[in-house]
Amino acid sequence: MTGMDVAELIGPGEFELRNRDRPKPDADEVLVAVSRVGICGSDLHWYEHGQMGDRVVDDSLILGHESAGEIADVGANVSELSVGDRVAIEPGIPCGKCQACRDGDYNLCPNVEFMSTPGTDGALAEYVAWPAKFVHPLPEGMTVTEGALCEPLSVGLQAIQRGDVGVGDTVLIMGAGPIGRTALECATAAGAAEIVVVDIVDEKLDQAVDQGADLAINSNTQNVLKVLETAIPTGVDVAIEATGAPPAIETVPDTVGRGGTVVLVGLAADQAVPFDTYRLVRNQINVCGSYRFANTYSTAIELIADGSVDVESMVDFHAPLSEVSDAFECATESDVVKGVIDVV
Amino acid sequence: MTGMDVAELIGPGEFELRNRDRPKPDADEVLVAVSRVGICGSDLHWYEHGQMGDRVVDDSLILGHESAGEIADVGANVSELSVGDRVAIEPGIPCGKCQACRDGDYNLCPNVEFMSTPGTDGALAEYVAWPAKFVHPLPEGMTVTEGALCEPLSVGLQAIQRGDVGVGDTVLIMGAGPIGRTALECATAAGAAEIVVVDIVDEKLDQAVDQGADLAINSNTQNVLKVLETAIPTGVDVAIEATGAPPAIETVPDTVGRGGTVVLVGLAADQAVPFDTYRLVRNQINVCGSYRFANTYSTAIELIADGSVDVESMVDFHAPLSEVSDAFECATESDVVKGVIDVV
Amino acid sequence: MTGMDVAELIGPGEFELRNRDRPKPDADEVLVAVSRVGICGSDLHWYEHGQMGDRVVDDSLILGHESAGEIADVGANVSELSVGDRVAIEPGIPCGKCQACRDGDYNLCPNVEFMSTPGTDGALAEYVAWPAKFVHPLPEGMTVTEGALCEPLSVGLQAIQRGDVGVGDTVLIMGAGPIGRTALECATAAGAAEIVVVDIVDEKLDQAVDQGADLAINSNTQNVLKVLETAIPTGVDVAIEATGAPPAIETVPDTVGRGGTVVLVGLAADQAVPFDTYRLVRNQINVCGSYRFANTYSTAIELIADGSVDVESMVDFHAPLSEVSDAFECATESDVVKGVIDVV
Amino acid sequence: MTGMDVAELIGPGEFELRNRDRPKPDADEVLVAVSRVGICGSDLHWYEHGQMGDRVVDDSLILGHESAGEIADVGANVSELSVGDRVAIEPGIPCGKCQACRDGDYNLCPNVEFMSTPGTDGALAEYVAWPAKFVHPLPEGMTVTEGALCEPLSVGLQAIQRGDVGVGDTVLIMGAGPIGRTALECATAAGAAEIVVVDIVDEKLDQAVDQGADLAINSNTQNVLKVLETAIPTGVDVAIEATGAPPAIETVPDTVGRGGTVVLVGLAADQAVPFDTYRLVRNQINVCGSYRFANTYSTAIELIADGSVDVESMVDFHAPLSEVSDAFECATESDVVKGVIDVV
Repeated sequence: MTGMDVAELIGPGEFELRNRDRPKPDADEVLVAVSRVGICGSDLHWYEHGQMGDRVVDDSLILGHESAGEIADVGANVSELSVGDRVAIEPGIPCGKCQACRDGDYNLCPNVEFMSTPGTDGALAEYVAWPAKFVHPLPEGMTVTEGALCEPLSVGLQAIQRGDVGVGDTVLIMGAGPIGRTALECATAAGAAEIVVVDIVDEKLDQAVDQGADLAINSNTQNVLKVLETAIPTGVDVAIEATGAPPAIETVPDTVGRGGTVVLVGLAADQAVPFDTYRLVRNQINVCGSYRFANTYSTAIELIADGSVDVESMVDFHAPLSEVSDAFECATESDVVKGVIDVV
Repeated sequence: MTGMDVAELIGPGEFELRNRDRPKPDADEVLVAVSRVGICGSDLHWYEHGQMGDRVVDDSLILGHESAGEIADVGANVSELSVGDRVAIEPGIPCGKCQACRDGDYNLCPNVEFMSTPGTDGALAEYVAWPAKFVHPLPEGMTVTEGALCEPLSVGLQAIQRGDVGVGDTVLIMGAGPIGRTALECATAAGAAEIVVVDIVDEKLDQAVDQGADLAINSNTQNVLKVLETAIPTGVDVAIEATGAPPAIETVPDTVGRGGTVVLVGLAADQAVPFDTYRLVRNQINVCGSYRFANTYSTAIELIADGSVDVESMVDFHAPLSEVSDAFECATESDVVKGVIDVV
Repeated sequence: MTGMDVAELIGPGEFELRNRDRPKPDADEVLVAVSRVGICGSDLHWYEHGQMGDRVVDDSLILGHESAGEIADVGANVSELSVGDRVAIEPGIPCGKCQACRDGDYNLCPNVEFMSTPGTDGALAEYVAWPAKFVHPLPEGMTVTEGALCEPLSVGLQAIQRGDVGVGDTVLIMGAGPIGRTALECATAAGAAEIVVVDIVDEKLDQAVDQGADLAINSNTQNVLKVLETAIPTGVDVAIEATGAPPAIETVPDTVGRGGTVVLVGLAADQAVPFDTYRLVRNQINVCGSYRFANTYSTAIELIADGSVDVESMVDFHAPLSEVSDAFECATESDVVKGVIDVV
Repeated sequence: MTGMDVAELIGPGEFELRNRDRPKPDADEVLVAVSRVGICGSDLHWYEHGQMGDRVVDDSLILGHESAGEIADVGANVSELSVGDRVAIEPGIPCGKCQACRDGDYNLCPNVEFMSTPGTDGALAEYVAWPAKFVHPLPEGMTVTEGALCEPLSVGLQAIQRGDVGVGDTVLIMGAGPIGRTALECATAAGAAEIVVVDIVDEKLDQAVDQGADLAINSNTQNVLKVLETAIPTGVDVAIEATGAPPAIETVPDTVGRGGTVVLVGLAADQAVPFDTYRLVRNQINVCGSYRFANTYSTAIELIADGSVDVESMVDFHAPLSEVSDAFECATESDVVKGVIDVV
């Protein structure tokens, strides 16, 4: 009983189910029996291309960094968690020593080990050993799927915190994929007065409206700025770019009013995008990059637990670990927001 | 004794000295006998082109918005200022009703009347009637030239406030012209630990070093990023773009470290500049437009009065109002930082 | 048709209904036909004592500063409002010139004229002439009672903005009177995760729970700190003191955790309260006074209009202007949260 | 060669020089040969009373937490520091796991081990083994005395950061002891326009003026509020309470203007101080506790290294470790600001 099944990405588009030794937790770690793993856009990128920029999957990589499960073992120094606890795993291990870590901005740690990037295997495995510090217990009544989705929720949460979204703000969100959807949930929870969502897929826009968006714009068939000019003539207070698509990035600064804030969270390919910097100056606009998250898990768990946000509604399908290849294929469809692998 | 001399711009490159009726102050206004007027880059732009974007000097325009003088008359409701007071004139009159004005961010007022823009004459005149609210008394010992230069100092002050420059910060300033120079003075006053200045004119860089810059880089002859990588390997905390030149704007986000801030204050021509938005996200960088200033005059006056900043050292020449044409020609030279017209 | 009925306070506990000339709006003013006036605790104080500190009602004072109605006439310069518009009246007129006004913090203007304080009559009158700038149109579907209650809602909103209440925060509110209730509504709208309300009247606590409080503590019968220690052992993130009662003020700093924030909004009598400043230092606590409000009306109106907050539920009774004496008597009862005078 | 001399406090007023085993650094630690140790007010408190609140020196305690020296040995995992490096020791070791630590506010860690408090020996020893993460290298030209004084400088720095002291601010500092003096240095570095210092000892006030204070008030012989009312009629922007004396704490909120900020950094005895909370509300004042420091050492070192602050001028005397008893006696004199023990 010391082995475990894992799904290894061994080349572009190619998974192999293998059996590995079950890891042993170090003194400060716990061993988590993984239950659910969400499929993220970056997982899909690795799956499709086998590389990201100059980072390449050499031999094999276990994908998956949106995960939750149950504690199966605890290291010698771990007292705050126990076997049997249901937990969400925060997927990055920062160094703890650099200035970013000291400041509490550990999402900016240059030495972070982040699940499902070359050098750090992810969670598509029956067991994961992980520092107790980055493993968060789930309250009664919260599902392990919700636990896994604390990760994309954290990305949305970081974005609305970077944009300082608050009571009465008008908000525009570019993209109704998983990040756009969690940003929508978080902006609503933060008291945004009016929320506009932009996407190119009607199904996703319909879901966003069901979820609480006040206005949906399909940028393939409508002129975003014209529709917005009628709906919110002064421009919005905060715009959140959650697509990473250059045309959306180029447009988003024009959607905010004087003194407004643009949050860039979608990762464009590593290329320059034309920016109207004249308007940034004249209207004294803030543009804030937002990268991953730091110190969001406890809030994410509270928001889900008390019903302030709903993350399960964005799940399109569940699939067992044995069908990981089909699941990843399915997740590449344009109208799919989120697929989840049920490891057990 | 009711006339006054003014310098009217009547076409690109063409001034005419005329005599106009001396204005009478309204109840809430004062009449200022103008002493000194600094020549700003935007004045030069109007002088050279007669237009800015789609705004055109139709008939004539009095330029000049960096001004100070002595109060010659006060309106019926004005009690806080008296004839004979030496004052600096804050050159914009915001509407007082829009949301920006209510919030105290009156530099963002869409209805502002700003000196030396079409529709609002500037200060190259013997007398100006102006709301008492935007006329600031100068303390004993402060010169009227310093009073006039509170305007460009305010632009630099707004920039370092937007960038939240504080004790121990490392700062890079793109451009050693008047805005770069006042930003340098303000960053030093705010406790910046190390300040790098970039320009393409060696004389200006030398002056910046004399003024306190720790490192000067000539971007015509040196690779800014390489020099910076050696000097401050982590990148600076705050970079201030004070040129408006597209190559500088394109480079400036690469000069700041993780979590760093870029302040855009230089006004590029109304065109898009390629921006590495991938880096903005990955390094969670803030880009803040900074436009003119709001609520800076009292601080500007204090900084000059107590010797924390030195604005007179950036003045290259003074000229009388009668020689305004020659003065503007001279001010277009690349190594001139600031020219001042002595009206009386 | 040029007269109007008003209710004048002519001495402690003594109203007289009188007929006055109907005011004429100045060029920048509108004339509002008042419909609803909420009774505030400070109105009750004037009514009961005829003075507040060293400010005394000499001859007569029209009370009431929570008001809404319909525009009956507009001054010559007013273009953004029209006869027939339903509006809420923001009750203070700041000077517009002091530093606080320039900064947008006009609630701190030392020269403000505030309705229903000696020198500035309030809204218990058929008509009020008021600067258009401080008169806010109500959207379709919003009642004039809700319009009047934008005023206490603004006080609650200012408090949660001062405390920077955000998504996931735990909040304690001292007092379930009108300010405590609006603070509760605003904290909920801002995404607070768990809200504790403390009062000494069970009926008010029950209403607070109906309104969404997660925990109610009667400080007459329970030890607040002990109950809190069980419920939220780390202490809350933000505590809002909305009673002005010295025992509550003395206790409230002990309810917040390390790095937590206390907002003082309840006005204690002008006396010192013992504060555990040792704890303020050791736990690095912030204590923020919160006074009236600035720039809150547009947000208050949005929050009511989109259903994010409910202010009508705190109204205990309505009474006509002719019964103002009885209404004020009734409003002094300990279990009454809010009474409203229906002027027409 | 494996022993070392240490000064142990074995009872109130009683030191004993003893020989102990020299500690060995763990894998993540370095061994520092201590050179200089500043005497802090809290060290004096332990020396005089043998206890603080309910914390008692049971058997013995090595005092001293303002220290610097030279690295004598490094643990197996330490690569960023080398034997011979001159370093300042940051005296607290936070747990790294609690929410405060995760947020970067490790001064609020409830599990911190802080030098010279019962359970954690201090630096009055020839050698100290300490985590490399909290040992900071000193740049060339900076003395070990300056390195030791990074600790009180950090307390002043934290205070001015808590108060957000910036360019053009007026600042009042209660107390011209070591914290008041470092706060004065930091406020000056941050661009404060005018600084008022209050104390009861003329010698200390004279030194503060020499150091750059614009106004000194002896609160024994002058009425602080009356003097201030003449000098700065609107009240100061930020007041820093650095005495811990109840009368000073009681007065300090009255020294700030509307919207102003009070920073409490002096630790009063564990007792309540009467606070005028009515004024805190009416004037919307912020009161911020400031406790120790977090993430200040790199800035402290920069400020000293580039000459922005001068810490050595506040040192009244040096004494060798062998004369520790006399040194502590001397340091209790009212006109002594800072004594330093030269361990080697």
